[in-house]
Amino acid sequence: MSEVVRIGLLGHGTVGTAFAELIAGGADEIAVPAGRRPEIVGVLRRSEGAFGEILERSEIVVELIGGIDPAREYVLAALRAGRHVVTANKQLVAQHGEELFEAAREAGVQLRFEAAVAGVVPVIRVIQESLAATEITKVFGIVNGTTNFILSEMANTGASYEEVLARAQELGYAEADPTEDVGGADAAAKMAILARLAFHTQVSLADVSYEGITEIQPDDLAYAKELGLSLKLLGVAERIDEGISVRVFPCFLYRGHPLAPIEGPFNAVMVEAPTITEITMSGPGAGGVETATAVLGDVVSILAGEAPVHQLRRELPAIDDVASSFYLHLEVADRPGVLARIADVLGRNEISVQSVVQRGLGDDARLVMVLHGCPERYFYAALAEIGKLDFLRAAPRAIRVIEEEFV
Amino acid sequence: MSEVVRIGLLGHGTVGTAFAELIAGGADEIAVPAGRRPEIVGVLRRSEGAFGEILERSEIVVELIGGIDPAREYVLAALRAGRHVVTANKQLVAQHGEELFEAAREAGVQLRFEAAVAGVVPVIRVIQESLAATEITKVFGIVNGTTNFILSEMANTGASYEEVLARAQELGYAEADPTEDVGGADAAAKMAILARLAFHTQVSLADVSYEGITEIQPDDLAYAKELGLSLKLLGVAERIDEGISVRVFPCFLYRGHPLAPIEGPFNAVMVEAPTITEITMSGPGAGGVETATAVLGDVVSILAGEAPVHQLRRELPAIDDVASSFYLHLEVADRPGVLARIADVLGRNEISVQSVVQRGLGDDARLVMVLHGCPERYFYAALAEIGKLDFLRAAPRAIRVIEEEFV
Repeated sequence: MSEVVRIGLLGHGTVGTAFAELIAGGADEIAVPAGRRPEIVGVLRRSEGAFGEILERSEIVVELIGGIDPAREYVLAALRAGRHVVTANKQLVAQHGEELFEAAREAGVQLRFEAAVAGVVPVIRVIQESLAATEITKVFGIVNGTTNFILSEMANTGASYEEVLARAQELGYAEADPTEDVGGADAAAKMAILARLAFHTQVSLADVSYEGITEIQPDDLAYAKELGLSLKLLGVAERIDEGISVRVFPCFLYRGHPLAPIEGPFNAVMVEAPTITEITMSGPGAGGVETATAVLGDVVSILAGEAPVHQLRRELPAIDDVASSFYLHLEVADRPGVLARIADVLGRNEISVQSVVQRGLGDDARLVMVLHGCPERYFYAALAEIGKLDFLRAAPRAIRVIEEEFV
Repeated sequence: MSEVVRIGLLGHGTVGTAFAELIAGGADEIAVPAGRRPEIVGVLRRSEGAFGEILERSEIVVELIGGIDPAREYVLAALRAGRHVVTANKQLVAQHGEELFEAAREAGVQLRFEAAVAGVVPVIRVIQESLAATEITKVFGIVNGTTNFILSEMANTGASYEEVLARAQELGYAEADPTEDVGGADAAAKMAILARLAFHTQVSLADVSYEGITEIQPDDLAYAKELGLSLKLLGVAERIDEGISVRVFPCFLYRGHPLAPIEGPFNAVMVEAPTITEITMSGPGAGGVETATAVLGDVVSILAGEAPVHQLRRELPAIDDVASSFYLHLEVADRPGVLARIADVLGRNEISVQSVVQRGLGDDARLVMVLHGCPERYFYAALAEIGKLDFLRAAPRAIRVIEEEFV
């Protein structure tokens, strides 16, 4: 149906490979919001491909090499040649952002980098677009998944930093050389980017003070648990009077704090402003396909441009026959055999009971049950039968329950 | 500095007034990301102003009247006249979305409506842009602040639905006629919009089944607490095989669920897809200035269009002198007077103690304290003094603590 948009891909590591697969698997789906069908016309690998040729053939350049050299040179060349650029490279944007932004402005092209901070959690888009006209006072959160995984594991298992780091490396949550993550430099680069965008002021990486988690001891976490605290590596960027403070440090949070329940390799960012109180966003902070999804979102945004994107893609019928679990509240006469009769109705309708609370009330009793999930029509059939039982003192009350436990 | 963009404002209730104030107070700030300075060139009030004249003078029409008539007629006329439109009107988009989207497509203009769902929580932008190329499988959450406030209050106070509703009306969290909120119709309209955008299929409001919270009894909440459950009015839109299910119902959640801690008039939405696991977003769901902020974000997005937005606006120096509270872990000789000496050092440096845990270890003891907030230089001065005390058995360990309790 639609025209092709030619994408040059620089880098073919974990994220690059995942990005190429997303494009290959979904080019037609992407064409609907984007208006054009994306196609990768050249891939620069370490040992293969020539940047100049790929640039020549591309309309959009996606930089997933990482590091400063040669990524900086390539991105600058692409912007100056009038190509839109999407990158996931936090160090590049944190250290050379102003130079890149200027090149993009001069060429009238877009530079997008949602994947550089908090992976697919859309914190950059929200700060730059949703809150573009809002005076942001503070941006803070958990922006490094490796350290959040390590701290969660230390707290949950009591193991030492060294033991948990080794486990994180086995699981692929930490690099062979984890220095940049565990020392705080990775989070510092991300916080420099967020502070730059939130406060519209130049933020040098040298102005960001940071500490890592290498000195944390298991007994700190044990004592903290007694005090009701959980430990996170926090990045905090805030306006203070006529200045800014951007810092990364391990930090205890009380249980009620929205960031306290963020566990494992997840990221979460909070944005505060007087007109919005606070917005909290969380999701997977890293991973090949998650980062590639964020990169692809940027590509789509470039393509969609100003075009209104409200095309229908398909017809899906409404489905009635969903499964749910239910809480069931019954007021019954307090006599022998009541529970057995109810259990029999439930059993015949293939519904099993997860938990029961029974309590006497003079001649009556209250029976509160949580049932396991079943097709809703089974439940409503059982409920109709129960409603007719002669020992019922009031109409039964049913409320759905989400059984899933998260994290 | 910059050109003016002319905005026609339809409606001057709570949100309209807040929007006009945001524009008046920040037109120059807005001009930086937007490229042009917004100016309201006409306001349609119930008893004042003529739509035709306002349309004539405007480039962007902001519809904040609410309801279907005459909002639908005005929005259609504006789109067909080639004006971009921003609206916060969920019923209009839910009931007449396809007609409006088609009018926008034909005229080549934008129709934006972030404020229609979850206020300033950027769920529409995220579904439409960040995740435009992602196969979303489920969108669900708390999309009505009135009912979430009522359920939180009922659970926390034990009061009846009627009592808490009256209190919500006093506080301005519920309307004089709360039917649309408490009956679930408001949430149903929002879920129809989210399902339409997430699944790219037509969703009729008639296909959305909904229940409200008017039948919830205080003792349901009391029993639920015993079972470790909290009650929310949940909207759930999901792909099921080759169909969709869109529903609104009161629902119990277990404590570990990311939506369980969302209390008061807040909204929260989760988006699930195989490539992203899940993204969670939360924030204030309603309120004049919050909704107006979301409307303004849409206006800025229209204006910014494809232009790269990375202008610096100011120079802010880095500030070192921040205040923090600290956790302090000391290994000391177990002898009398130790705690007094440490307390003396802290007192002289104007630091007060929030909590202490002391534990003996043979001849030694561990002293773990959480201190109240103070300028960090006070704390580091105290720490240097403590480090020199002769009864110290190891270097002191200090970790910051966020004292704030949220919500």
